[in-house]
Amino acid sequence: MSALSEREDKFRRRAISVQEGQEKVLAFAKTAETEWVPLPDAQGRVLAEDISAPHPYPHFRRSGMDGFAIRSGDTVGCTSERPVYLEVVDEIPCGSLPSVSLVPGTAARIMTGAKVPDEADAVVMFEMTESGADQGKDFIMLKREIAPGSNVTPVGLELAAGDLILARGRRISAGEISVLATFGVYRVPVAKRPRVAIFSTGSELLGIDEPLQDGRIRNSNTYMLATQVREAGGEPHILEAIADDLATARLKVQEAFALYDLVITTGGVSVGDFDIMADLVRGDDVEMLFNKVMMRPGSVTTAAIKEGKHLFALSGNPGACFVGFELFVRPVIGRMLGTDQPFLPEWEAELGRDYTKVNNFTRFVRGRLEVRDGRLFAYPAALDESSVMITIKDSDCLIVIPPSSRGVQAGETVSVLRLPGAR
Amino acid sequence: MSALSEREDKFRRRAISVQEGQEKVLAFAKTAETEWVPLPDAQGRVLAEDISAPHPYPHFRRSGMDGFAIRSGDTVGCTSERPVYLEVVDEIPCGSLPSVSLVPGTAARIMTGAKVPDEADAVVMFEMTESGADQGKDFIMLKREIAPGSNVTPVGLELAAGDLILARGRRISAGEISVLATFGVYRVPVAKRPRVAIFSTGSELLGIDEPLQDGRIRNSNTYMLATQVREAGGEPHILEAIADDLATARLKVQEAFALYDLVITTGGVSVGDFDIMADLVRGDDVEMLFNKVMMRPGSVTTAAIKEGKHLFALSGNPGACFVGFELFVRPVIGRMLGTDQPFLPEWEAELGRDYTKVNNFTRFVRGRLEVRDGRLFAYPAALDESSVMITIKDSDCLIVIPPSSRGVQAGETVSVLRLPGAR
Repeated sequence: MSALSEREDKFRRRAISVQEGQEKVLAFAKTAETEWVPLPDAQGRVLAEDISAPHPYPHFRRSGMDGFAIRSGDTVGCTSERPVYLEVVDEIPCGSLPSVSLVPGTAARIMTGAKVPDEADAVVMFEMTESGADQGKDFIMLKREIAPGSNVTPVGLELAAGDLILARGRRISAGEISVLATFGVYRVPVAKRPRVAIFSTGSELLGIDEPLQDGRIRNSNTYMLATQVREAGGEPHILEAIADDLATARLKVQEAFALYDLVITTGGVSVGDFDIMADLVRGDDVEMLFNKVMMRPGSVTTAAIKEGKHLFALSGNPGACFVGFELFVRPVIGRMLGTDQPFLPEWEAELGRDYTKVNNFTRFVRGRLEVRDGRLFAYPAALDESSVMITIKDSDCLIVIPPSSRGVQAGETVSVLRLPGAR
Repeated sequence: MSALSEREDKFRRRAISVQEGQEKVLAFAKTAETEWVPLPDAQGRVLAEDISAPHPYPHFRRSGMDGFAIRSGDTVGCTSERPVYLEVVDEIPCGSLPSVSLVPGTAARIMTGAKVPDEADAVVMFEMTESGADQGKDFIMLKREIAPGSNVTPVGLELAAGDLILARGRRISAGEISVLATFGVYRVPVAKRPRVAIFSTGSELLGIDEPLQDGRIRNSNTYMLATQVREAGGEPHILEAIADDLATARLKVQEAFALYDLVITTGGVSVGDFDIMADLVRGDDVEMLFNKVMMRPGSVTTAAIKEGKHLFALSGNPGACFVGFELFVRPVIGRMLGTDQPFLPEWEAELGRDYTKVNNFTRFVRGRLEVRDGRLFAYPAALDESSVMITIKDSDCLIVIPPSSRGVQAGETVSVLRLPGAR
């Protein structure tokens, strides 16, 4: 038996497509529990329930101007030659209610946002009136007809009572906060953040505060992953590195499953002799979903289910680890949070520069988007090898290069997956 | 004297362009102090110093494969008919150093990411070898020539020592965290978050937890602004609402300037009799920068400097408040943080639908971006009045509609300002 076939047998790798892999992992994603947070703390969280309007908005007829509330009928036939005089009988600041009824021939001074008296059907702005006084009474003079409804915002213009305001699964940002505050939702039902354990494997890893050593690198992937987990809406927990020892690894991962909702490891998933994740996910209590994906980088991305929870074993190569997270872990966290679109958003763009690498698997190439004259262009990074770390920071998208024997030429259309934080 | 000219005099409003207003406020933006945070807490912060590579990366010749490190000269002339046999004399896991020198005719088993022995100049993957043993010695058989450099990542491929890794002003996300960890920057110099005080004005405002009352609305703008401040990189502090009383308002704002780096108010900047912000910013110790901008919504946006700090008096209308923040406050916070591009990022897009409102001022219309066939289309929201709150949440851009007597037709090119959080 050759070395190759022996290893194939040991790891039983059958490469599946990215889409198939995503379907497999999403099928096991359980909806997070609901918790209630004060409105000011809801930013970035995901709504766990539909929110409907408890009242129409606006809930009273609102003045759109600083001016005078009038009965438009009083201005019929009014011209600069035949002006109309109205007695000012009330003054309505914001937040106050009209204090008298407006009978014909009267007006109320009113502020933007204040309640229009029931008898009035229009507001005329200050600038269209002239003020005067006569025998201790205040008057305004109008020189033209005013249409009914002018500058009066009707009840329910924006929303009727019972309208769906925000649907479950919506991520909360400034606009959502504004709506929730408006309707008095001061305790907000949100999905609990999945608690995500992050392990690195490999005795080659130095701590980030350790001096450099020959042949060894610092552990950067766990911190990168923690950032990705937070961006995806999860709560990262960086655990101690797992040494290259199967029994210890099993124990640590076992403990993590008891405490966390999801477990990620980085490193230890290539076919090398010293990698233990591949063995680990073959335990009796673990259901392997896949251990090879038809993609570059990250073909060794592995996913398994243990006690109903996900275990993701990502590559130790920074580029492959990053992509493995974005394609498989992010959607699972998103689905747990209840978002309806858990994947990276996808656009089409024109490839800005030839990408000539030959691929037998789909490539997810780090790149940058540019817009010129309303057209999107995607530029692949100069270095996009699996092992390359430096171009992750300069990328705002992953360019999808399908399997091809000739690469993709500049000017051809490609799909791009937009990365979080990319603007 | 007419009512109109009286008010003009009182508020001395001279409308300036958005760009002029932005230049005025940015001229007063002071750089925030530097603080040092642990790497895992640096996400979302802005780098306060340039970071250069303390060492090349990779800092040792790294194997790109699981396989055998060899001297490529040993394979010259090698074919399947004339295979070459190499004795395996070492085994190099990740993080270990070679233990023997590779003399001609020998090879070292090596793992991806491990240090390649100095004498070797290529790595050949397992799959291209056949293994065997003879007289207690392990051998591999090769059937073709291997090019020098194969599967060996040279020192400094990604970065040389001294290269600028990350420039001051860079916002820290997953890729930056990865780089900082790699280079052992475990305490990160970041700009202190500007502390931003947020006041609302207006006695019409109910708390978000109060029952609705006729003629009154809940205070939603301060919570929306707090969200916008956080997104911009500041630290929001929601203070008690200011009653419509000039003396109290002055005192509260005075106190806020002692405690915070920047003060925002919302409400009280229209020309109405009950608005006090306009009076407030006319105090002796306050330098007014502008109190009218040639834009809709938010033409009454007001900016002033007091004790070297910014005071922004934004409209009480939700739409106008939102836009006023994004166009004027966000850039100031960004500049304080040291970001080189503090404005909302701008793209060109094709207007997807006629926008027929006549404008004498530039309009910043809430809208949505769509991409079809690599082209960007911008769709204005159905309701975009200053007072409308509900469409903020559904917008991912502001469409810039220049002053026009006929509006803009579908198919024309417009600028769009992309909103934060928009993906």
